[in-house]
Amino acid sequence: MPAPTDLPAPLKALAGRADDALARALPGDDAPPVELHRAMRYAVLGGGKRIRPLLVYAAGHALGVDDERLDSPACAVEIIHAYSLVHDDLPAMDDDDLRRGRPTCHIVFGEAMAILAGDALQALAFELLARDEPKIDAPGRLAMLHALGAACGAEGMAGGQAFDLSAVGKRLTLSELERMHAYKTGALIRAAVRLGALAAGHHDGDLLARLDRYGHAVGLAFQVRDDILDIEGESSVIGKTAGKDAAADKPTFPSIIGLDASRARLDDLVADALDAIAPLGQRGEWLADLARYSAARGH
Amino acid sequence: MPAPTDLPAPLKALAGRADDALARALPGDDAPPVELHRAMRYAVLGGGKRIRPLLVYAAGHALGVDDERLDSPACAVEIIHAYSLVHDDLPAMDDDDLRRGRPTCHIVFGEAMAILAGDALQALAFELLARDEPKIDAPGRLAMLHALGAACGAEGMAGGQAFDLSAVGKRLTLSELERMHAYKTGALIRAAVRLGALAAGHHDGDLLARLDRYGHAVGLAFQVRDDILDIEGESSVIGKTAGKDAAADKPTFPSIIGLDASRARLDDLVADALDAIAPLGQRGEWLADLARYSAARGH
Repeated sequence: MPAPTDLPAPLKALAGRADDALARALPGDDAPPVELHRAMRYAVLGGGKRIRPLLVYAAGHALGVDDERLDSPACAVEIIHAYSLVHDDLPAMDDDDLRRGRPTCHIVFGEAMAILAGDALQALAFELLARDEPKIDAPGRLAMLHALGAACGAEGMAGGQAFDLSAVGKRLTLSELERMHAYKTGALIRAAVRLGALAAGHHDGDLLARLDRYGHAVGLAFQVRDDILDIEGESSVIGKTAGKDAAADKPTFPSIIGLDASRARLDDLVADALDAIAPLGQRGEWLADLARYSAARGH
Repeated sequence: MPAPTDLPAPLKALAGRADDALARALPGDDAPPVELHRAMRYAVLGGGKRIRPLLVYAAGHALGVDDERLDSPACAVEIIHAYSLVHDDLPAMDDDDLRRGRPTCHIVFGEAMAILAGDALQALAFELLARDEPKIDAPGRLAMLHALGAACGAEGMAGGQAFDLSAVGKRLTLSELERMHAYKTGALIRAAVRLGALAAGHHDGDLLARLDRYGHAVGLAFQVRDDILDIEGESSVIGKTAGKDAAADKPTFPSIIGLDASRARLDDLVADALDAIAPLGQRGEWLADLARYSAARGH
């Protein structure tokens, strides 16, 4: 089958569901502190593909969890993702002024408010999972909170960003680059898959290991595709500044192994992701869709 | 009795206990990403009075909780406090280069690493509380995570900082100033007291309300004393730049109601804190010590 450059209809509908749940989870922009609430909503509700929420829904779906129990973890991972983009775009970090085709948060709200909006979003993600609700039992929610905390911290996303900072201008090996991405973007993607599975309430160790393997492969596939798009894409299509990585002398898959080998690596990662979830059969359909999409998307 | 300018010996010993627990809770500075781990340890382990951990221990002590069950919540609130200081000190925020008598985190490690260290510390605080440990039951830990998340977010510490940003150069009323501080520093101090109480596992609504009232009064008292010290103190004693608030045209208690009325307000707050915990009798001794100390400390 040809690789899909767009998401199938059921997943598009779930992305809409995630949008609605996020709009409800965020503080209203008419209540004080108004400017902070506006910056938070701007950062989260400005579009985005909602890949991480979709991974939560798809993993939960594969284990028979209904969507309603997946809304909070789906929102939590997307809110974490949004906060990380706000902080990554700051002048002291990647200094980007375009994101998802719009001015970045600090361009619109100022640097101080962008730092605070990111900080408040991180807190909100944890609060959402901790908030008392009868849908998922307390040990399940604690396991989610633990997984999310680990994915965000020094051994996860923030650690990956630190590796990234220290990698600028350096020659990395392929395995060093993959380790950096496994932390920087991979940890949260693996956590999204894991949160969906934990919502099922039963913890089959073998299945969780397979889903982790799936998450690892899909996370890397998204990054390889990102690096390829940074070369092939146009700013107007990918919604951010094209050629930015090369200009910033950042190590990428194409810069280390070349464009053809990067494409081959992408195929391998998708094959590995599909192999990992093969035992799920038809129930893993959405996860398979997302794996194929990760490698073929046009933006 | 004369107001104590120093902490009594049992609380000093507990501050040492908190130091040890924090050193264990933080990632080692010999493991990668080394620079991030160093920045995190620098931010947390650089002294500090450990007031928030002491409030956790004191509130737990008042309800008969042993210290071992209080170590994680004590570390979590102090790690949140440390992260907030790192971000508050950034050039885009308060632009401070001295804290606790040492160069601030971004001066030593650079702005990008300071942002990341703050981000990773926030995640670590939640992870610590969520981590599987048998000492406190799952519903109790979820209640703690919820209280901490709410205290850190847009309706707590981050929201207070947003109010603070928008207050620079403005004339605030006393009640506006108190609301700002109730968010900015008060929310986390109330959360510290509440986490100590939640560790007891039994949730007496009336007692929690009294402890919240205590936390509110003590949190404000610390702030009033801070404002007074900013006028009276010397940089070498208070460990940060004296006269900074006035220079930055920040509203303070003395600037709004004058120095004498600020001192009177401080006395009222301590009296209210002591009244709130009066039913605890001798068990509330450490909480009482901390209330008196909040108003009398020399730095």
